[in-house]
This record gives sequence, C-alpha cells and structure tokens, in this order.
Amino acid sequence: MNERLEFYYAQDTCSLASHIALEDADASYDLHRLSIDQGEHNTGPYLDINPKGRVPALVTPSGVLTETPAILVYISQLFPEAQLAPAGDPYQFARLQEFTSFMASTLHVGHAHRMRGHRWVDDELAIAAMQRKVPVTVAAAYAHIEDYYLNGPFVLGQQYSVADPYLFTFAQWMEPDGVNPIQFPRVSEHREMMAQRPTVRRSLEAEFT
Amino acid sequence: MNERLEFYYAQDTCSLASHIALEDADASYDLHRLSIDQGEHNTGPYLDINPKGRVPALVTPSGVLTETPAILVYISQLFPEAQLAPAGDPYQFARLQEFTSFMASTLHVGHAHRMRGHRWVDDELAIAAMQRKVPVTVAAAYAHIEDYYLNGPFVLGQQYSVADPYLFTFAQWMEPDGVNPIQFPRVSEHREMMAQRPTVRRSLEAEFT
Repeated sequence: MNERLEFYYAQDTCSLASHIALEDADASYDLHRLSIDQGEHNTGPYLDINPKGRVPALVTPSGVLTETPAILVYISQLFPEAQLAPAGDPYQFARLQEFTSFMASTLHVGHAHRMRGHRWVDDELAIAAMQRKVPVTVAAAYAHIEDYYLNGPFVLGQQYSVADPYLFTFAQWMEPDGVNPIQFPRVSEHREMMAQRPTVRRSLEAEFT
Repeated sequence: MNERLEFYYAQDTCSLASHIALEDADASYDLHRLSIDQGEHNTGPYLDINPKGRVPALVTPSGVLTETPAILVYISQLFPEAQLAPAGDPYQFARLQEFTSFMASTLHVGHAHRMRGHRWVDDELAIAAMQRKVPVTVAAAYAHIEDYYLNGPFVLGQQYSVADPYLFTFAQWMEPDGVNPIQFPRVSEHREMMAQRPTVRRSLEAEFT
C-alpha cells in the first residue's frame, strides 16, 4: 500500500474536479497524467489500478478509489480542516451527495453522448443522432442547476465545498457541448469566479504544462 | 416542513433501493406511489417536490432529497444505530459511495437505454440501436461488480449496507436487460439471499399491493 496519495488524471476530463479538491485540501500527492489519445487509460499498468479504464483514480494508503463523487467525499473527510463538505448535519451532507450524484449520472452522462457515444451504441448513425441531442440534454441539466442547485455564490450557498470544482469542471465545456452560457447567468458567474481561484489555476497549470 | 419522512416511489424503478433501506433502518415514513404510466411523476403536485420529475424523492423535516446515492447515505446517517454504512473510516465510507455512484452513473444509465432512450436521442432507429447494445453494457457493469465490487456475502463484505438493496434492485432486471444470471454467480447468489430478507419482502409487498 502507498503511503502517499497518488492521483491519476487525464487532460480535459472530469478528473479535474478531484484534482482541484486535492489542491483545496492542501493535500500532498503525486500527479500522474494519462493520455486518453494514446490509450494509456486502457493499458495494463493503469488497468491494474482501475480495471474500468477510466479516470480519475486516487491511490490511497487504504486502497484505490474511483468515481468522482467518492473521491470528492473522501478528500473532504480525510482533510476535515479544509471544510470542503458540511459536517454534522445528515441532510446538508446528503444534499452535497445529491448534487455530485446528479453531476455524475445526468450532466456527465448527457455530455458523454457527444464524444463517447460508442459506450451505448455501435451504429454510426445512432452516434450522430446522440450528438445532435447533446445540446438539449446538457442545457436541461444546467437549467436544473441554475434554478435549483446553485444557491450562490457557491453551490451550497455561503460554504465552498467539493461541489464547486465539480460544477466548474463541466461548465468549462458548455460551449463545445452546444450550450450558450448567456442562458445560465448564475452558472456562468460561478464559472468566472472559480476560474480566478488559486487552487483552480494551479490545477489547470499542472495539467496543461 | 414535514415532521415525518414522506417517500415517493414508482413500481419497478430504482426507488425500491431507498424503500428497502428505509425498512432496514426501521424508519417511520409515509409511502406515496406514483404511476409512471399515468405520468404522475411529471405532474404539478409531484414536480413541486421534485422538479426533475423522477423517482425516488424523500421529503425530510429539513427539505427534499432526490438521487438514490444521496437518499441512501442520508438514511444511513439519520439512523446510525442500523449500521447501514461504514462509519469512522473515510476510505471504507468512500468505497460505499464509489459503489453507489457506479450503480447510478454506469449500471443504471446502461439499463435506462433500454426503456428511456428518448432521454438521449429523438430518432427511432437510434433508440433501437441503443436497445440492441443494452445487454452488452449492462453485462459489462455486472462483470465489474462480480469481479471487483461484490466481496460477499454483502457488497462490502461481512457488513450489510445500503449498497445491498441498490444492487438487488437492479439485479431483479438482469433477464429483461438481456443478461443471463448464470454468467454472474456471485451477483445471482446475492440476489437470491436478498430476496429472502424480511425488509426486502415487506418493501416489495408494499409496492405491489
């Protein structure tokens, strides 16, 4: 078992959310970049870590963790002094899980139909049909976030949490997903605020240099 | 705000997982059935509770909760004496979240392409193409559960948790999803064991009478 945290990511993927959370927690960790283009996420050494062949993965002293909502809650609990999740109130804590679950199973899945349609169909015409609907499904998810989840200035209101880097990570891709940010002023404002945060800038710099 | 827990479900949906967890916790709650066929999940009174128009929803004294992983973690924390989640160990707790997140964003999404393809495409031929691949994507998710998640006898090993009713709920649908249970003996054994549990039987009886 590793003594240190080892974080596996790929550029332009949802792994950025966990990366920012590690920076927010001021965690000590080693950063490992995988090239999706070169298929490194689907090669032997990484499949030993995560047999699903997906990023992110966090190797902890206790074992491997995958799935963004799980990595985010782990970071928040391993570094309680960073106050990255509501503590002591089951409802508020569950609301955070509700948001991260919505991100993973609705917004991320809608977005994934643009570039990863082969997960769900083999037919090229069907993949194209999926891509055509991405702007609709992704916009519907942002509409829900805008109207119901994003209390402002942070997702949970006054308290910054691991929900914020998760929203920021996807909000970066509004334009390529075919969504006009002007339709979602609160999400856009959150995105601009997040882009200025030192932990976000450090994470992006580390991923793209 | 409600004093009691109010649980909204529909027959033959993922809401069964949270329903069983409420029974496992010996919670006091009122049960409200919605008919998907009659569109009750998309009508005014229910949309006031869950604007997403999905089940399940749990109305708590603090507010509404949706998304199965969030409802499951809430029940486990509201009723700690029922010991439905590992407590005190961030890694073990996160492993539970990893499993519920995988269920929501991979197995459930694969399964949903069989009956809810219109979420992601408008084209009828594309919906049919999606349906053809459901046995493949759902079987791949069960292969992962069989090999990596299901420690046995329960998902987390010796400790029963809210992960178990979540797996059972989907495992009921292996055959209609085009998956042969014989390929997944550990999942099948778990399904048979779960089907005998009094809380599972009570939940199914309440949903179907």
